[in-house]
Amino acid sequence: MRESEPVIALTTDFGYRDPFVGVMKGVILRINPSAKIVDLNHGITPQNISEASYSLGVSYKFFPDRTIHVVVVDPGVGSGRRPLMVGADNQYFIGPDNGVFSYVYALSQRTPRVVHVTAERYFLSAESPTFQGRDLFAPVAGWLSRGVPMSEFGDPISDYRRFDVPSPNIAEEGVLRGEVIHIDRFGNVITNVRAGDMERLRGKSSPLMIEVIIGDREVPLREFYSQAGDRALYCLVNSSGYLELFVNGGNASATYNISAGDKVEIRVVSDNER
Amino acid sequence: MRESEPVIALTTDFGYRDPFVGVMKGVILRINPSAKIVDLNHGITPQNISEASYSLGVSYKFFPDRTIHVVVVDPGVGSGRRPLMVGADNQYFIGPDNGVFSYVYALSQRTPRVVHVTAERYFLSAESPTFQGRDLFAPVAGWLSRGVPMSEFGDPISDYRRFDVPSPNIAEEGVLRGEVIHIDRFGNVITNVRAGDMERLRGKSSPLMIEVIIGDREVPLREFYSQAGDRALYCLVNSSGYLELFVNGGNASATYNISAGDKVEIRVVSDNER
Amino acid sequence: MRESEPVIALTTDFGYRDPFVGVMKGVILRINPSAKIVDLNHGITPQNISEASYSLGVSYKFFPDRTIHVVVVDPGVGSGRRPLMVGADNQYFIGPDNGVFSYVYALSQRTPRVVHVTAERYFLSAESPTFQGRDLFAPVAGWLSRGVPMSEFGDPISDYRRFDVPSPNIAEEGVLRGEVIHIDRFGNVITNVRAGDMERLRGKSSPLMIEVIIGDREVPLREFYSQAGDRALYCLVNSSGYLELFVNGGNASATYNISAGDKVEIRVVSDNER
Repeated sequence: MRESEPVIALTTDFGYRDPFVGVMKGVILRINPSAKIVDLNHGITPQNISEASYSLGVSYKFFPDRTIHVVVVDPGVGSGRRPLMVGADNQYFIGPDNGVFSYVYALSQRTPRVVHVTAERYFLSAESPTFQGRDLFAPVAGWLSRGVPMSEFGDPISDYRRFDVPSPNIAEEGVLRGEVIHIDRFGNVITNVRAGDMERLRGKSSPLMIEVIIGDREVPLREFYSQAGDRALYCLVNSSGYLELFVNGGNASATYNISAGDKVEIRVVSDNER
Repeated sequence: MRESEPVIALTTDFGYRDPFVGVMKGVILRINPSAKIVDLNHGITPQNISEASYSLGVSYKFFPDRTIHVVVVDPGVGSGRRPLMVGADNQYFIGPDNGVFSYVYALSQRTPRVVHVTAERYFLSAESPTFQGRDLFAPVAGWLSRGVPMSEFGDPISDYRRFDVPSPNIAEEGVLRGEVIHIDRFGNVITNVRAGDMERLRGKSSPLMIEVIIGDREVPLREFYSQAGDRALYCLVNSSGYLELFVNGGNASATYNISAGDKVEIRVVSDNER
Repeated sequence: MRESEPVIALTTDFGYRDPFVGVMKGVILRINPSAKIVDLNHGITPQNISEASYSLGVSYKFFPDRTIHVVVVDPGVGSGRRPLMVGADNQYFIGPDNGVFSYVYALSQRTPRVVHVTAERYFLSAESPTFQGRDLFAPVAGWLSRGVPMSEFGDPISDYRRFDVPSPNIAEEGVLRGEVIHIDRFGNVITNVRAGDMERLRGKSSPLMIEVIIGDREVPLREFYSQAGDRALYCLVNSSGYLELFVNGGNASATYNISAGDKVEIRVVSDNER
């Protein structure tokens, strides 16, 4: 097999109606014609930093080592917010210092290495204050992919912005309160409750069952979608390890009117309470 | 020219709001950094197996020999339905055994070679029952593209699922009844009636004309879109060889309220009936 | 670095529901397995030639030299309109002769070289009159990317179609009238007024201010989005050098009911008029 081409993966809120993403690809290929550019997700809700952070967080570990992730979800473009380059988990991340890498920081095995990108010699000369995806992030990714070391792009910082990755609270003994963080293309409802959270709640007493409640509705737990025999609301642990509510062959969010931010409750019950 | 990189083409119903497709690409590139990944279609209506089958059926023969098509439209993910690898027409097809390859089976020049994929050593170890696109189909495609032979992935089977590719019926002498199988991006209405069906109906008596009727409307036949001089409903034989109803510069489906499943009738008339 | 692979960039109105774009990629890769295919924009409003021309015009100069741009926005497909190959600004452009290259013609540093593509030996043999993206433009791009010289594809012409790239008029002394040419994914409103037009209007007397008016609303000028402190309507010179109206963190087009074709007025005022 030939020497592998560097992978550059793009996450943006640019959607599919404009040439923004295509122009970023042109800029990268002018700098590094060998780059292998992959669209990770361009359907992020406009300017939704936490959605972008989640999308990247559940995805990046499936990419090859040394992949360069460029993330442009950037309500503060042109303002003083800093451009960053992050090294974590054997991959690179380039984007604005607005918290969009919070999942990466939280999931990374070691302390991430974060550089404030200031080396203007790697920016496009036709720099504009409103499209730094084209003028700053894409060219910096191109040069990094050609082997320019991280230290050339600016100085290390440690005061980068990060939000607390939403995690559920133990509300009272045996009760966990979480919330909906994402609705996917199929109308599946993804919560911030992870398999591990539910295991800890259940503890060692294995006969105890778990009850999932949204609104005042109890939601039965299944292992995969087609185990649900009817079009009612069910839940499972999804492929990213999060509790997900679904309707088999239907749209849970639309049918049951569930949106991001809605609360969900998980409680332990003993078998004879059921 | 350098040795060509293996082409992997993706067809899914994953849409453009989530990182699902991007993650599959990451998985493939971890296994085979030389793979050339092409998006064939990610806009399949969620879980619509017959739409995916048609989309693939009219497309695959335009791809290079040895292209690997991965198709993930998979309502039964996680259940007992089998994962398949198919060799047909000098190309490969990987996806669930739910009928999604029916057009390939029908169009293939020879009997297709079908393997039930069971070799777990080619799956991702972090296997989840709800995202086999990531955990099974993508890695299997990666390994196949690296030259692992088909026989390594499992045993041949012949009882794979296939539905009858919809084809119109001769309702009575000189009358053919078909139906709408797809509405495209432009609102064009694609039916299951092929050019060859109309030729056979017309037979040898060339002065006989053909009449296309939908609802109680007669639809004049043209050769290309801009031959239609007004915004009325017309039809033509489209680029895939199917009878298609259209409005030149407009949206036939929306304007004339036509949907998938609607019936269409083709009849032979003699010139003096007109 | 290895010898660079030829870049082929695609602009179409094919959207994201059908396999049309994917099939064009298959056709290209059959002819040139080394081609590097980039999606520039497939979200052009169906059959909107001027939108496609603008999208290409603000994008192409960011691509590598010798990039081949294929543009399929083609209401006249199958009719007599000519297929073209254009050489301009060290890049190539392939598409229908319907004015879609007007921005390229207007922006090109030198007189473009335009060839009427007639060499059928470079077309697909399965030619259909309704999908020339697949049967003509894609294969011609593939062969051009393999090094077939422009002159092989047909004879030079100079009577190709071009529309006047919309540019604002000086309505009266110190007043410029322009119009909205595009609404982007974020609801930003792009006009045909360029930074240079405003500079010329302002002239040398620097204390004079510029006023931007849409409907009967005065729109304050900013340098970047997050400079706008509230959710009112503002404007700036965007990353392509055009005057753009926006709502910071909102959707200007929807909130203020502004569409393509709406008029905008720029006037010079002296400081004491304000």
